[in-house]
Amino acid sequence: MMRFLSFETDGGHSFGAAVDGGVVDLGRRPDVAAKSLREAIAMGALAKLAELAASSRPDMVQGDVRFLPVIPDPAKILCIGLNYETHRLETGRQVVGHPTVFTRFADTQIGHRGQIVAPKVSRSLDYEGELAVIIGHGGRYIAEADAFNHVAGYACYNDATLRDWQSHTHQFTPGKNFPTTGPFGPYLVTPDEVGVIGPQRIRTRLNGETVQSATLGEMIFSIPVLINYVSSFTPLRPGDVICTGTPGGVGAKREPPLFMKPGDTVEVEIDGVGLLASSIVSED
Amino acid sequence: MMRFLSFETDGGHSFGAAVDGGVVDLGRRPDVAAKSLREAIAMGALAKLAELAASSRPDMVQGDVRFLPVIPDPAKILCIGLNYETHRLETGRQVVGHPTVFTRFADTQIGHRGQIVAPKVSRSLDYEGELAVIIGHGGRYIAEADAFNHVAGYACYNDATLRDWQSHTHQFTPGKNFPTTGPFGPYLVTPDEVGVIGPQRIRTRLNGETVQSATLGEMIFSIPVLINYVSSFTPLRPGDVICTGTPGGVGAKREPPLFMKPGDTVEVEIDGVGLLASSIVSED
Repeated sequence: MMRFLSFETDGGHSFGAAVDGGVVDLGRRPDVAAKSLREAIAMGALAKLAELAASSRPDMVQGDVRFLPVIPDPAKILCIGLNYETHRLETGRQVVGHPTVFTRFADTQIGHRGQIVAPKVSRSLDYEGELAVIIGHGGRYIAEADAFNHVAGYACYNDATLRDWQSHTHQFTPGKNFPTTGPFGPYLVTPDEVGVIGPQRIRTRLNGETVQSATLGEMIFSIPVLINYVSSFTPLRPGDVICTGTPGGVGAKREPPLFMKPGDTVEVEIDGVGLLASSIVSED
Repeated sequence: MMRFLSFETDGGHSFGAAVDGGVVDLGRRPDVAAKSLREAIAMGALAKLAELAASSRPDMVQGDVRFLPVIPDPAKILCIGLNYETHRLETGRQVVGHPTVFTRFADTQIGHRGQIVAPKVSRSLDYEGELAVIIGHGGRYIAEADAFNHVAGYACYNDATLRDWQSHTHQFTPGKNFPTTGPFGPYLVTPDEVGVIGPQRIRTRLNGETVQSATLGEMIFSIPVLINYVSSFTPLRPGDVICTGTPGGVGAKREPPLFMKPGDTVEVEIDGVGLLASSIVSED
């Protein structure tokens, strides 16, 4: 159907859709009620907006877009740990019967082509390429069989992690919540464009070298299982985000370890979903 | 200085202050710019509002107040685990050098005299009486020596937990995020009213029986250490909440276990801070 995005303008934040030749700014159109992508999702307006965008001329070329996180302000970002067998094995964690769930705050997120700030209080900034699921219709106790009806679309996510802070205790929160460590983008791609989840390859590249590679079908807990499980303890709302976990190959488990440092570039690419690029800068 | 609260009216949400004889509704006053307690904190207006309330007549008696969570919509709720030695010992967890941090979503919260819904998918609803710290001035990398300057006030919190869901994996998120499991109230009490943190006793009572009892001075990581640690990985903002951990005596570690069930009442009382009461109801 379409690729949607959130972006920054001189006048504030807007959202739009990617079309041939550029981006249509939907947020500033008087005939569009929604002022953000999250609002558009909540209004169930994506299909209509896709039609509108398809018949519009682009307002800017893609190179000029200042990307925001796909959803800049999700009410909930639920991250799944250890959801690819290759990653579970490299961490030495036990097999468990339920998804491992931790959270991110929305202010950790950045958009495509944004900068990850390597914090001065850590030396172990790691990458984690992931598929993000963006919730459309909300709900509680969503059945697995109905789960895909609650998906608005997909995007790339880099669940970047400060490994030292992640392992201060058994709870992951500190290592997963430094500002700018959640690149999310470039686009929300609607499910019909991505197709059945499974064969698509997800790759992370650090300075051009592939450091993670798997197919989405390798997830231990599938997207319907994740949506059912998560919605059993917390109601999901339009624009909420589920990061579905990262494959093996993280920097911390390499010999020698391979951490990201200022000057590096990192990319997460998923077939049919897009390519999310970030650069690393120093905090000082 | 004063006790502030958030409450529900027929026209929506408001906030106010507790005075002799009742509650002054500040949110509906034309001479008050803030429309919520969180806004009032962000504007640095509490001292002035305390004066205003002290010279006003109450708009309602306390018995009629429909309490909301002290801050209904904090951007961040950071919960500290294992922060009293008696609780660490009963859980069998190792001594660690850093605070254990997990998170709650704001939609888990309820106000004083609210109902905790025992979810149909669990049979192990447990209590955790805690002191909540409400952030005033925000900041990042807040020094321990400066930490108390960033505190707007204190309240009682019940970090109620579904023990089975908490231990599905090593991450606590699911067991800590069922709706209505975060009673928070009744009031934000300003630091001058509470005094130096230490000697105050915190007690949890289930159906009138004391099940947890400790002094705030028994915390392993003090409030300044917590504020410094948390603000090192995430910027704090006005109205953010830090739940400082629970003492020993939780129901799951008793022989036999003592869980909360529909019909029960649970109270968290802290000297100088208040008494937070909740009743348990069935989901069905």
